[in-house]
Amino acid sequence: MTIRLLIEYDGTDFAGWQLQPGARTVQGVLEAAFETLLGQPVGVVGSGRTDAGVHARGQVAHALVPHGTDLFRLHRGLSALAGPDVAVRAVEEAPAGFHARYDARRRVYHYQVSTEPRALDRRMRLELRPVPDFEAMNAAAGMFVGTHHFGAFCRTQSATENRVCTVYEALWEREARPGDWRFRVEADRFLHGMVRAFVGTLLLVGRGQLPAEEIPDILASRDRRRAGPAAPAHGLVLERVDYDDAMTRRP
Amino acid sequence: MTIRLLIEYDGTDFAGWQLQPGARTVQGVLEAAFETLLGQPVGVVGSGRTDAGVHARGQVAHALVPHGTDLFRLHRGLSALAGPDVAVRAVEEAPAGFHARYDARRRVYHYQVSTEPRALDRRMRLELRPVPDFEAMNAAAGMFVGTHHFGAFCRTQSATENRVCTVYEALWEREARPGDWRFRVEADRFLHGMVRAFVGTLLLVGRGQLPAEEIPDILASRDRRRAGPAAPAHGLVLERVDYDDAMTRRP
Repeated sequence: MTIRLLIEYDGTDFAGWQLQPGARTVQGVLEAAFETLLGQPVGVVGSGRTDAGVHARGQVAHALVPHGTDLFRLHRGLSALAGPDVAVRAVEEAPAGFHARYDARRRVYHYQVSTEPRALDRRMRLELRPVPDFEAMNAAAGMFVGTHHFGAFCRTQSATENRVCTVYEALWEREARPGDWRFRVEADRFLHGMVRAFVGTLLLVGRGQLPAEEIPDILASRDRRRAGPAAPAHGLVLERVDYDDAMTRRP
Repeated sequence: MTIRLLIEYDGTDFAGWQLQPGARTVQGVLEAAFETLLGQPVGVVGSGRTDAGVHARGQVAHALVPHGTDLFRLHRGLSALAGPDVAVRAVEEAPAGFHARYDARRRVYHYQVSTEPRALDRRMRLELRPVPDFEAMNAAAGMFVGTHHFGAFCRTQSATENRVCTVYEALWEREARPGDWRFRVEADRFLHGMVRAFVGTLLLVGRGQLPAEEIPDILASRDRRRAGPAAPAHGLVLERVDYDDAMTRRP
C-alpha cells in the first residue's frame, strides 16, 4: 500500500534531501530506517528536493510498504531511528496511486531573516545588517506573482526542462518577534534554486542596488546572470506542500 | 563608566552563565572578549545565573569600562568575538551605580514545549507526549502567584538564603505554531532551579499524577522533595529582565 509521510527536518547537518552515496541525506536516513523496520529496501519519494542546509517543516513524501503494515508502529519506529534532526510528523495511508511529487498542487516556502543579532535561531535565520527596505522588497516581490518563465531564477542548466511556473503569492511579512521577517512564496512548482535567487535579488532591491522596475526585464531575459546571487541556504524552510486531499495536519 | 549589555544566547554548548575554570560559560566568553578588546580584565555581572543548557533572549549584564570607551566599536567587537551562540543585542551607558542583579525589578522566563514532534527547534523546546492537560496545569500554575516562601521549589541547600519571592504571573499560553506552548512566569526574583521545579511539578498535574489542590501544601512544606522533578534545562529561556529605567529594546 502507499503511505504518505509528513516530515520536519533541520537541514544544517544534511547534504540535502536527495540520496547520495557517502553523504548524509534526509532521504537516505529515512530509507535506512524503513529497511531496518521492514527488512526490505523501500524507496522514499519526496515532493521535491531541498538543497544542502535547507530545512523543512512540512516536507511530504510517499513510499510503498507491504499491505497490512502497522502504521502506528512504523511511525514510532521511524521517529526513533531517523535521528534528532528529523521529525516524522505523520504517517498515514495515501489514496491509491498517490505520488508526492506529481500530485503536489502548491508548495510554500519561507525564507527567514532578522534585522537584529540572534543566537537562538541562527541556524534557520539570515541576519541582515543594515536593515533593508522591506517596502521596496515587497513591491519587487509582487512582480514575481503570475505565470512566468523563471529561467533567470533557475540554477539548472538543462535546456529541455520546463521553466514556466505560476507564483500565487510572494511577500515579506513580519513575524512575532520584533526584527524577524520572512519572505513567503507560494507556487505550483519551484525550479532549482528559485527561492534563494528570488531572495538574493530582492535583497539587492532592498539595499538600493537594483531598481524594482528591472525585475520584469530580468524575468524576460531568462538569464540567470541578470538576477541576484543565491541567498544562503540556512534561511530557507519548505513550509508546506498542498494536495487535492490535504494532509490534515499543517505546520 | 558603567555599561549595560543586552544578551541573547543559545545555552546548548555552555556550562551555564557563571565563570568556571576550564568550562565554557557565557560570562567567561564575554569577559575574554572584553579583555581582548580593552587590554585589561573586565568583570561582567549578570542579572542572575542561568544553569547549563538554559538559554536567554534578554539577559542583562553590567560592566565597568574606561571612561570614553567607544561603545559602537565595543558592541561590534564583542559581537565578533563572542561566538555564534552569543548575540550582543545592545550596549549602552548605564545610570551611575547601575547593578544588573540588585537593580532588577522583574525577571521573565519562558519554558517552551511542544505536543508535536519537532526537529527545527528541538534545542529549545521540550517534546511532551502524551499531551498533558493544559487547563489543569494552568489552574495549578495560578497557585504560584503571590508572595510565598518557595523553599519547596529551590535547589540550593543553604538555610540562610531568603526564599521569599513574589510571582506576578504564571501561566501556560499557546504559541503561533499549533502544538507549541510556553509556560510564562514573571517574578521579582527566582531561586535556583525554581522555574524548572515549577514546570516539573505542573507536568505531574497535567498528567494526572498530582492533584492541583496539593500545590498549597507543597508550598507550605518548604520541602524540595514534595515538588516534582526539575524539567530539562533546554526548554528554559530567560526572556527579559526589567529595571526601573527599562532597556529600550525588548525581545
